[in-house]
Amino acid sequence: MRCEVVAIGTELLLGQITDTNSSWIGEQLALVGIDSFYQTKVGDNLARIIVTLRLALERSEAVICCGGLGPTQDDITREAIAAVMGVRLARDPVLAERIRAIFAARGRVMPENNLRQADVPEGAGPIKEMPGTAPGLICPVGAKVIYAVPGVPHEMRDMMLGTILPDLQRRAGVQAVIRSRVLRTWGQSESGLAELLAERIEALDRTPSATLAFQASGIEGIKVRITAKAADVATAEAILKEEEATVRAILGDCIFGIDSQTMESVVLDLLRARGLTLAVAESVTGGLVGARLTAVPGASDVLKGAIVSYASAVKFDLLGVPEGPVVTAEAAAAMAAGVRRRLGADVGLATTGVAGPAEQEGQPAGTVYLGLAYGAQSEARLVRLPGDRNRVRQYAVISLLDFLRQTLLAEA
Amino acid sequence: MRCEVVAIGTELLLGQITDTNSSWIGEQLALVGIDSFYQTKVGDNLARIIVTLRLALERSEAVICCGGLGPTQDDITREAIAAVMGVRLARDPVLAERIRAIFAARGRVMPENNLRQADVPEGAGPIKEMPGTAPGLICPVGAKVIYAVPGVPHEMRDMMLGTILPDLQRRAGVQAVIRSRVLRTWGQSESGLAELLAERIEALDRTPSATLAFQASGIEGIKVRITAKAADVATAEAILKEEEATVRAILGDCIFGIDSQTMESVVLDLLRARGLTLAVAESVTGGLVGARLTAVPGASDVLKGAIVSYASAVKFDLLGVPEGPVVTAEAAAAMAAGVRRRLGADVGLATTGVAGPAEQEGQPAGTVYLGLAYGAQSEARLVRLPGDRNRVRQYAVISLLDFLRQTLLAEA
Repeated sequence: MRCEVVAIGTELLLGQITDTNSSWIGEQLALVGIDSFYQTKVGDNLARIIVTLRLALERSEAVICCGGLGPTQDDITREAIAAVMGVRLARDPVLAERIRAIFAARGRVMPENNLRQADVPEGAGPIKEMPGTAPGLICPVGAKVIYAVPGVPHEMRDMMLGTILPDLQRRAGVQAVIRSRVLRTWGQSESGLAELLAERIEALDRTPSATLAFQASGIEGIKVRITAKAADVATAEAILKEEEATVRAILGDCIFGIDSQTMESVVLDLLRARGLTLAVAESVTGGLVGARLTAVPGASDVLKGAIVSYASAVKFDLLGVPEGPVVTAEAAAAMAAGVRRRLGADVGLATTGVAGPAEQEGQPAGTVYLGLAYGAQSEARLVRLPGDRNRVRQYAVISLLDFLRQTLLAEA
Repeated sequence: MRCEVVAIGTELLLGQITDTNSSWIGEQLALVGIDSFYQTKVGDNLARIIVTLRLALERSEAVICCGGLGPTQDDITREAIAAVMGVRLARDPVLAERIRAIFAARGRVMPENNLRQADVPEGAGPIKEMPGTAPGLICPVGAKVIYAVPGVPHEMRDMMLGTILPDLQRRAGVQAVIRSRVLRTWGQSESGLAELLAERIEALDRTPSATLAFQASGIEGIKVRITAKAADVATAEAILKEEEATVRAILGDCIFGIDSQTMESVVLDLLRARGLTLAVAESVTGGLVGARLTAVPGASDVLKGAIVSYASAVKFDLLGVPEGPVVTAEAAAAMAAGVRRRLGADVGLATTGVAGPAEQEGQPAGTVYLGLAYGAQSEARLVRLPGDRNRVRQYAVISLLDFLRQTLLAEA
């Protein structure tokens, strides 16, 4: 069973709105095991919408088209579908009444235009969910089908979950379920991971119980996605679990979390489990470490605070860094120790370096020292980070948190 | 001139990544007057990529395809384009050397896989911008053209702005030049701006020298874009200048900057012009104010630093806030005064509030007090911000900076 998605609206092509609906629909289709090989954006132009729907119906058994169901003259999805079906539009009196009732309930006068939304291609029927004034439509085309849903995300979602996905599964006679899990890594390049996992991927190609795919997410590391297809949820989950264990045995500690876990949430959890509190001294990152940690609800039981010692004087006066050059391993270690002492925390972290574009203290952009004060030790690590100012700073944040993560894991 | 966009990647169809590249490309094409009637997403499947590129080339004179240029086995855009061109791939020794050099400069060993990125369809040439390891390609197909760019947004953007847009304009023989300027606003809703500018927009509809459009950008405020089309650059710039003056006369101080100016760069410039230094105390924003200010190169001559007083004890001990409730106007003002004193700055700013999801001190999520210490005064302002934890924190940052901006402008 193949289902294409067609997103309709000139504003999508012009980039005034990003089409997030297709992504969400694609994800839902994948979860129930329906293939979606093409997704198309097309503007509010009757001829081009018709061509697009026809092509989609040639290639796939079902099409979900999104948008163009509003009351205005440029909302022409209904007309386009009628043309593809070879039928006329007829006003549905039940829908017309429902639309009138919605306006009445909101105490508003209904512009006559809005009744266009009750026009339905002959042979098509409305989707039962109708959270707004735009009815969704199920439009049979021979043995195939076009579903029309509004572009308003929450209206579209209600119709997808309530009617379209169950209808597609019924049509497909689908038994298979698909489940996936993301392993999040830091410290290996995409090609490095590919080499490490090459043998495993080849083995999976021969006996396909699961598939592995990589997804670079820049400053968030690289994701390894495991996808399993099986006859039922329990089997799919069991395949995922086994494959996760296999991949973990190969990749080891560069996996820092799964699915929606972030480096910051993982580090906060590690500290919380050990009953440790944290303080951060930031120079090159300028507050980003604090900002990312405090983005996690509940960070306050671990994080005491941070000192952004942007001016060197603040490093010397408030953190007790010895006067002298500040882009050094010694300064990073002293900052970490200073902020730990100053804020009364168990662990101190620090960044000092050169974000660019200009060099500083004779060191090139991308030079960053990471400081860590923990137990009796203060230490520092030098990293050379690629990219522009923003990327250097963001890479410094995740590198710093990973430094702490590796240190905590090593003592366990 | 018509140009389609093809976004390549199974992860796009599966909704693991939202395709924002096509939207951005569509916006850029519209700005230079090139039509984009179809934008298609297709997975990492050779046959389907080839079919999609062929169809796009039938309908349009140019195609920009985005993604699938990485080093791994599922990156097959190069192969697909070669098939559409009817040529072979050949390894480009210059590109291969460039890729080796990038790895060497980063002190990393290059996996042999990466040399696949130097494979180029015969007759195609590299795009000169190459911010990552994936070269972009210009691939002539008869009189038409396919451009291939990486899916990494900043790499794609460099290539679009530096090479592809100028090349498309040259091919289109576009004479008319289009120039646009963005006026960035804070403090008015989109409908509020539309009401204020309604009369002006009507006047422009009658004698179209320029057009005005709104673009909500959430935590960055709302943009008013002025677009002028004229026979030459000088005329277009003159129209922009005149229209900007007209819009400024109507909107006044809610315009905080133009084009790429941000609230933080504007505030740093205002402080720098007055010879003032700044210190920030952050609770609810957790480092975001510091992070945004230090994202601007040269922030160090204004910003002394910041203290993220996440734990209440840090507010009391380090900032001298009187012990007691901390989500109050008094605490915000005391934090601003405390950080100014502690870091020896001329101006102190502070945030304290409730980001959510849980309430705090009996106050609902979205309650934020902004503190400002300047001259003989310490004052505070209460704002109630909408949205989830992330949006509340981001809105708090820009509201705080705007508070300072308005204060500095008022004394001038």
